[in-house]
This record gives sequence, structure tokens and C-alpha cells, in this order.
Amino acid sequence: METTSNSTDSFDRIQDGDNIYIIFDPKRKWLVTVKSGKQFHSHKGFFNYDDIIGKKFGTIVLTNKSTKLAILRPIPIDYLRQISHSSQIIYEKDAGAILLYGGIFPGAKVIETGTGSGALTAIIANFVKPHGQVYTYENRENAYLTASKNIALLGLNEYVSLKNKDALEGYDESDVDSVVLDLGDPCLLIEQAYIALKPSGVMSIFVPTYNQVERVYHELLKYPFIEIKAIELIEREIQLKDNAIRPKTWMMVGHTGFLIFARKLQTDKESVKHSQKEEIGENESS
Amino acid sequence: METTSNSTDSFDRIQDGDNIYIIFDPKRKWLVTVKSGKQFHSHKGFFNYDDIIGKKFGTIVLTNKSTKLAILRPIPIDYLRQISHSSQIIYEKDAGAILLYGGIFPGAKVIETGTGSGALTAIIANFVKPHGQVYTYENRENAYLTASKNIALLGLNEYVSLKNKDALEGYDESDVDSVVLDLGDPCLLIEQAYIALKPSGVMSIFVPTYNQVERVYHELLKYPFIEIKAIELIEREIQLKDNAIRPKTWMMVGHTGFLIFARKLQTDKESVKHSQKEEIGENESS
Amino acid sequence: METTSNSTDSFDRIQDGDNIYIIFDPKRKWLVTVKSGKQFHSHKGFFNYDDIIGKKFGTIVLTNKSTKLAILRPIPIDYLRQISHSSQIIYEKDAGAILLYGGIFPGAKVIETGTGSGALTAIIANFVKPHGQVYTYENRENAYLTASKNIALLGLNEYVSLKNKDALEGYDESDVDSVVLDLGDPCLLIEQAYIALKPSGVMSIFVPTYNQVERVYHELLKYPFIEIKAIELIEREIQLKDNAIRPKTWMMVGHTGFLIFARKLQTDKESVKHSQKEEIGENESS
Amino acid sequence: METTSNSTDSFDRIQDGDNIYIIFDPKRKWLVTVKSGKQFHSHKGFFNYDDIIGKKFGTIVLTNKSTKLAILRPIPIDYLRQISHSSQIIYEKDAGAILLYGGIFPGAKVIETGTGSGALTAIIANFVKPHGQVYTYENRENAYLTASKNIALLGLNEYVSLKNKDALEGYDESDVDSVVLDLGDPCLLIEQAYIALKPSGVMSIFVPTYNQVERVYHELLKYPFIEIKAIELIEREIQLKDNAIRPKTWMMVGHTGFLIFARKLQTDKESVKHSQKEEIGENESS
Repeated sequence: METTSNSTDSFDRIQDGDNIYIIFDPKRKWLVTVKSGKQFHSHKGFFNYDDIIGKKFGTIVLTNKSTKLAILRPIPIDYLRQISHSSQIIYEKDAGAILLYGGIFPGAKVIETGTGSGALTAIIANFVKPHGQVYTYENRENAYLTASKNIALLGLNEYVSLKNKDALEGYDESDVDSVVLDLGDPCLLIEQAYIALKPSGVMSIFVPTYNQVERVYHELLKYPFIEIKAIELIEREIQLKDNAIRPKTWMMVGHTGFLIFARKLQTDKESVKHSQKEEIGENESS
Repeated sequence: METTSNSTDSFDRIQDGDNIYIIFDPKRKWLVTVKSGKQFHSHKGFFNYDDIIGKKFGTIVLTNKSTKLAILRPIPIDYLRQISHSSQIIYEKDAGAILLYGGIFPGAKVIETGTGSGALTAIIANFVKPHGQVYTYENRENAYLTASKNIALLGLNEYVSLKNKDALEGYDESDVDSVVLDLGDPCLLIEQAYIALKPSGVMSIFVPTYNQVERVYHELLKYPFIEIKAIELIEREIQLKDNAIRPKTWMMVGHTGFLIFARKLQTDKESVKHSQKEEIGENESS
Repeated sequence: METTSNSTDSFDRIQDGDNIYIIFDPKRKWLVTVKSGKQFHSHKGFFNYDDIIGKKFGTIVLTNKSTKLAILRPIPIDYLRQISHSSQIIYEKDAGAILLYGGIFPGAKVIETGTGSGALTAIIANFVKPHGQVYTYENRENAYLTASKNIALLGLNEYVSLKNKDALEGYDESDVDSVVLDLGDPCLLIEQAYIALKPSGVMSIFVPTYNQVERVYHELLKYPFIEIKAIELIEREIQLKDNAIRPKTWMMVGHTGFLIFARKLQTDKESVKHSQKEEIGENESS
Repeated sequence: METTSNSTDSFDRIQDGDNIYIIFDPKRKWLVTVKSGKQFHSHKGFFNYDDIIGKKFGTIVLTNKSTKLAILRPIPIDYLRQISHSSQIIYEKDAGAILLYGGIFPGAKVIETGTGSGALTAIIANFVKPHGQVYTYENRENAYLTASKNIALLGLNEYVSLKNKDALEGYDESDVDSVVLDLGDPCLLIEQAYIALKPSGVMSIFVPTYNQVERVYHELLKYPFIEIKAIELIEREIQLKDNAIRPKTWMMVGHTGFLIFARKLQTDKESVKHSQKEEIGENESS
């Protein structure tokens, strides 16, 4: 049998400084950093981090109260759930669509505005690494500081350039592969996003209301974009219970927002606006 | 202004052998490979590939009939739409969820069964490269040959190990980060998937019916999995039309399937089954 | 055993002039009127109406080609599906919500604008009879004639006052229990609808786009309405198939429209507008 | 102008013994009975019922604390929301579908099992009156007593026959137009429901899980039913707020249940089962 990860064996074992995801049950989970010589404490008891250092991720540890805790290696999605909710949240389903529709790939250069708590930043950073970079702008100092802490905690400093700066003053980067806008009034940044994108690059915009969908759409039409598309994703969790499979009765999140995507054409504005209306990129409706 | 991609400038220009995405309008698009000395033909006229070689992606080309065609660099999602529909299709929304919930990341080792047309294979390969690998199993020779052609066409051979082999005979790999099952009866492969996964690794299973959700759930309970979760994603496209913003009237895809996720615990089976029922990983319902 | 319908036994037997619903399979169904001395013809063969007169609804008849056809008594929903699609259609799910949220009941006086093909008219008429009445306005002569034919065919003339008249010129009725608006620009009729409603009466408005939801909402705020509410209903048909229960893969109708409801307060406009904003009927959002 | 309701003018004025719906704001509403000589009390103050007797529904009354309360005539839907939640609830959207797909009409004879709190009973009674009747079975004495109280409170005694009796012992009625099953195990009652229905009558079954959808479907196939259909309705409330129209962020009800409908054929069982499989009523899936 071919072992696919011999070279990364140490990666599979818990080390001092690793982030770990501790699970007691579906409602009690903690994302923490292993600190040799210290302890993890909860109302379920405590254990010494040294007891798990060197063990494989996926192990189970007993607390002093004989409570069993599972130790998992966090995947990016876990960050989303644990990062402090200091700002509007992009949900997993929406983050997944941004990865796919938004032209994100390992090695990509991505601009994000605003950073918020850094949750989406962390997701994207995990998918552009090791050679890509997320340039993320946040003009509110509080959010900037929270995001800085979160990105550092997650060990993503290398892949994230976090800027406490108003994107309205212009982006520092150009020729990026993807721009992601998730802020109060994305219309104000569409021109700058168009300029910063490389031709054929993709813009993703998250907005909560229909009014914003309409305004963003009208703003996008002013520039040579193509493949303009808007979607909404609805996630239903399915109850897994013996002889009682069904959508969960209580779905707490009824609506997060709409996602709008567009791709940049490399052309002078006038010629494209003309072509767009007549021949290319008509957004036909059913 | 910091130019983020000086070193990749040639990457931004169309070259012989590149895949390009040609767009006439939302319903007429083609994913083709640039061949110096040859022509692209459609009912909208033709153009010489040499006319676009050296231009930037995002350009517009005129056919001999003066039709304007946009030339984009394809993003992975475009592959999904263009790959031949020879097999059950994983949809974009579902692929996005598999990336996020399924523990995929750049550098990951991923087993997929079955390959089908290679559409999901291509998506995943694009997100594990450059250092990761997708090991994909397909026992039907026709599908295998189609997928081989598709993966080669997309230039992903380096990141994909495509096997015309029945996964029931066992996986060749071990200690993989993620296993994705999308085949008729995934229950048959759950034990082997458990074995092949590294501890803390994630399994993603796509099934179209509720009966399969139930069977998969019961099969998963036989092994030390945690964080078992099932979801359904519903995608609604929003009509972008002046003064008439609304969900599109005709949504062709009413249901694709359900996604089930689970993470492997590293423990002897008995101890975990015990702990799972009593304390860890209860899948509580609302 | 108590027989609940002795007195209506003849009602249970097929008579000359009855509407019947003939079913061959889920895709081939016909809503026709029994005509003694004549025949029903289809590509599945023919039968004489006299062969079924006197039989109970629910019987099965053989055509000359030995094809079995089921003969059902139509329920209102069947009319909706069979009435010619000459105009925007209100769907079953939306009609059901209008009955419940729209203040319809046996004996109710209801104004409807516009009539369209008469499909919703027929549904409502079936639920206000025998003592209620639907006053329905249609200014397009073609639609008026189609609806007249449909209402007569369904034997509902007694419960429907169909008017080929522009509702903008004012309603002939006052103190009605319910007003249902389903036309291009419902905002134009909200004042007249307010006037025609009895205090505590309910208005139901069907609109396809979000832009209209917003305009209708703003128009409603100009009058003393309370309990203003907007909903969208999404209907998923479930595939019933052995061991393959799931939402149907192809859901043809992705969106029909939004329903807005409001109830009339009996008060002078100024006092209510004041109270509405400060204390009553605030449409709080989550 | 034609006044449609001269004869019912007294019906429009509030009288002693009427049920009224008192609204302070969207979250504080009360369904109560007017009692001459008594007072309505809430934390917003009190008023004397005699102050509103003789006024039109839709009026506004001031409490001793100068709070404005709107007085509406309740529509059936209001009962649903106010009736005590002592049992599984059928939601408005589902009740609307049962009215339309379930063959309910003014004058209909309907059997319901179980009664629960009487909420659906009340809805149906309101749509079969004045000449129809709901025969409703409830074997749990507590629920029976609650429902009796609710039905009496709503003034529906004349249209409801409420029975504290186990339907498994057989229905007292025959030749009914419609049977509605909403209880733990509807499969146990399908044969009796088939017997009680008149030919061409309709059965409606509400079940919360997919497992039950499958079991009910298999049970229905044992009898000569046609037009078997299952649906799920999803209701999204739309936030009505200036410049912020969108689906509400928090949708509390993610899933109520599935509705299954079937119509009775009048034939001996064997002949129909045969025809159903070969020619009639195949439930084709997409």
C-alpha cells in the first residue's frame, strides 16, 4: 500500500503551537492553540497539553473528570465558526460559492474588502496558499485589530496582508486574480475593483438585500464586465436520526445574502458597453 | 502601485496550448484549446487562434462575420459546465461545500470514487495543486476513458492519478486527508474509506435520495466517526433585469442531492463507539 | 354506520352536463363536460358519455381500444391546471395562501383584479359559494372572453360577476370582505381597494418581482392598513419511487411570485398613519 | 355604488360574544371573546368591552394608558396562531394546500384524525360551513378537551363533530368527500380512510419525516388510489423595510412536514391495482 504522506508524518502529530479543535458534543467545541506546560480547562474538566503532544490528530483525551474529548485538526470551516462574531458573517455555503465562482485557486492574488472579523479572509487564505496572497482592507480599527489577532492565531500571517485603511482611497495592488467585496456599500468600490483586477479576473460581491442586488447590477453595467450572475444559496441541514430523516425543523438561518459575480473584459469601456448590450453578456432571463 | 503579478505576466497572455473560454452570450460558450495555425469555427463565424496568441485574457476578438467573442481564462467552474455529461454530475454548489466541509486544501491528498466524467476530479485537483494529488477510481471503462481525456485536456494530469479499477478491491493509498464518495452505493466503501483516511481526515459523501442518506448514516455509525452532518444546498439564480429583480421563474435544477460529512477518530473501534453514543459526537436533532 | 351524504347521492353519480376529469396517466388528463349522445375522443380511443352517465365518480371506463380511463369529479385545483394559459397564472400554492391569509370564506364578497384566464376566479368562487360572490374585473377583451367561457364551462356563473371594465375607473362594490389584486401594476388600485374593503377586510396582492414588493409596500403605508406581511411560497414535489424518495430532480417552477397581505383599519387616515408608525402594526424585521 | 353587504351590516359591527383579534404590534396580539360588562386587560392597560360593542370591526380603541389597540374580526388563520400549542401544529401554508389539493369545499363532509388542538379542525370547519361538517377523532382525552374548548370558543360547534374515540375502531361516517390524517402513524388508518371516502374523494396526509412519506406511499399502493402526489411547501417571509427588502434573516420554521394526497377510485381492488401499475396513475418520476 502506497503511503501518501510519509514525508508529512510529523504534520499528522499534534505539536506545541498547533491549533486544535476540541469536541465534546455538537454544541460544545473549542478551537485553541496547544501550549506545552499549560492546561485546557472547561466545565468538563482539564487536561495537560503535554498529554496530547506527539499523538495523532483524531485522538481522544480524558480530562481529570474522565470526560472524553476528541482532538481534531481544524479545517478552514472550523475557523469560520469560532472566529469572533464582531461583524457581518459570510456563511460556509457562501464562502464555498466564492471559492468556486469567484476564481480563487492556490497561488491566486485576492483583494478582499472589508476584512470584518477575518473569517472569510482565513477561508480564502487557506485556499490560495502557499504561493498566493490575500490583500484585505478594513477601515474600522476595532475590526482590524480583531482580524489581526484571528489571522495570527490561525497561523496565516504569511498569506494575508491586512491593512487598516479605507479602500475608497484606492487599492495598492493591481493585476489581481480576484476581488471579493463584502461591505456596507459595495457600489463605491466597483470602479477600483475593476481597475485592480487583471483582465479575465473575477469579482465576487456579497449583499444582504434585493435593493443592493439591483444597485450593484446597475453599477456593474457601467464597466466592461461579462458573465454577470447573481445567486442565492439556501442550506438545509438534514436531521440524522433513526427512522426520522427529515430537514431539521428549526432552521436558524433563513437568509444570509446574495452573491453577485462578474468577470473583467480587457477593452476600452465604450467598445465593450456597446458590445455588451448588443451581443455579449446579455443577462437573459428565463 | 504594487503590481502583484509581474512574474506571472506571461501567464496572463494567451499562449498556444492554453485552454480558453469563448463567450458569445450566456447560452453560447465554448471551452477549447488554442492551436496555433488553426481556427475556431462556430455558426457565428471563425477566427484564427494566432490572432489572439499574445493578447491578454479578457480580450475581445472579431470573427470573419464581425461577431464579437470574449476570450476568458477558464476558472475551474467552467470545466464543470463543459465536461461531457456522461455520468451523474456534482453541481457547483455541492462542489463548493465539498471543498469547505470536506477538508480539501492546497497540498491535500484526496481519494475520489467514482471518477465519472472527471468534473469533480478537476475541481478538486485545481484546489489541491501544486503539491497535492487526487487519486480517483472508476471501474467503468467508458467513464474512465472520458475522464482521462477531460483531465488531460484541462492540463491536470500532474495532479490526478486516475485508476480504472474497482475501489471495492481496496484503495492503494493510506493516510489521505480527504475521501470523496460519489457513486451508486457509497455504503460499500465506507469501511475502506475509513481505513484510508488519516486520523482527523474528512469523508464527504454525495447521495441523491433520502433512503441513501439513511443507509449511509447507519453505516457511518459503525466506525469511529465524529462530526457527522448532512446538508442539502438549494441554489436559486436571481434574474438581473432592469426593475425586475427576482428569483428566476424557471429553475431547472430542483434537487441534485444530499451531502454527508464525517471526520475520522483515531481510536480502537469499541472504545469510540462507546464514547460516541454516550458523550461524543451525538448527532442531536433540533 | 352513519351515511353522511344520503341526500346528495345523485351528486355522486355522473350526470349529463357534469364536468369530469379524465385521467390516463399523470401527464395525460382532460377536463371535459359530459354530453349525452356524444363521445370522448383521444389518441387512446373513444367512449360514449352515455356509458358513464349514472355511474359513480371514481369509476374506470374502457375505450374502444381497451384503454382504461379513470373518471374523477374535478376539484377546484383541477380547473387551475386545465384553464387555458392565456395570462399570468396564480399557482396552487399561492391560491391556497390567498384563501387562508386573504380572508376568504364561504359567503364572502370578493373583488378580484384582473381576471386573467379566470383560474383564480374559479378557485375563489368555489370557496365562497353558495352565498358569496366574486366580482372580477378584466379590461382586456380577449382575456374577458376567455374567462367568461371558462367560468361558464365550470358552472360557476352564479357565483361570479365578470366585468369587462377597467378597474381604474372605480369598483362598483363596497364593503367587500376581500380584495385580490393580480395585475401588472397593483399600486394603481390600492386606494380603490382600500375604499371598497369593509373595515377589517383583507387585501391580497400577487407580484412577481422584488421591485414590486417594495412599491406595493410603500403604497400600502399611505393608507390605514395593519398586519402588512409579505411571503413567498416554494413548492417542492417529492418523488415517490421505491427506495428512492427525494425531492424531484427537475423542479420546473422556480419562482411564481410574492404575496402581500394587509388588513384595513376603520379610522381617519391621519390618526392611523400616526398610530401605525408609533405603536400599531409596525412591520418589524428580524 | 352597489353595496354588497347591506343585509349583513350588523355582522360588521362588534357584538357581545363575538371573537375579536386585538393587535398592539406584530408580536403582541390577543384573540378574545367580547363580554359585555367586562374588561380586556393587558400590560398596555385595559378597556371596557362595552366601549367597542356597536363599533365596526377595524376600529381602534384607547386603553386607560392611552395605548392604541386595533380591533379586527379574526379570520381562520388567526385561530391557528392563537390556539394552544398542545399538539403537533399544521401550519398555515400546509392548511392552504390541504384546502386546495385535499378536495375541501363549502358543504363538504370531512373526516379528520387526529384533532390535536383543533387548529386544523377550525380552519377546515370555516371552509365547509354552512352546510358541511368536520368529523374529527381524537383518542387522547386531554387533547380532546382542549379541542372542545377551542372549537366552542370559535363558535364552530355547529360544523364540527368532535369525538373522543380511537379511529382505529372504525369511522362512524361513510361517503365523505375528504379525509385528512395528521397523527403519529397514518398508515394504520389508510384502509379505513379508503372505506369512508366516497369514490373520487380525496385523502390528505401530513407527515414530518421522509421515512413516513415512504411508508405511507407503500400503504397507499395497496388500495385503488390515483393521483398520488407528495409535496413540501417552504414559506419564506419577506422583510418589508425601507430600502432593505429581502427574505427575513431568521426563518424560525425550517420544516413542518410533507403532504401526501391521493384520490379514491371506485373499483374492486384487484382490477385497479392491475391497471394502476400498467396504465393508470403511475407516479412517474422526473
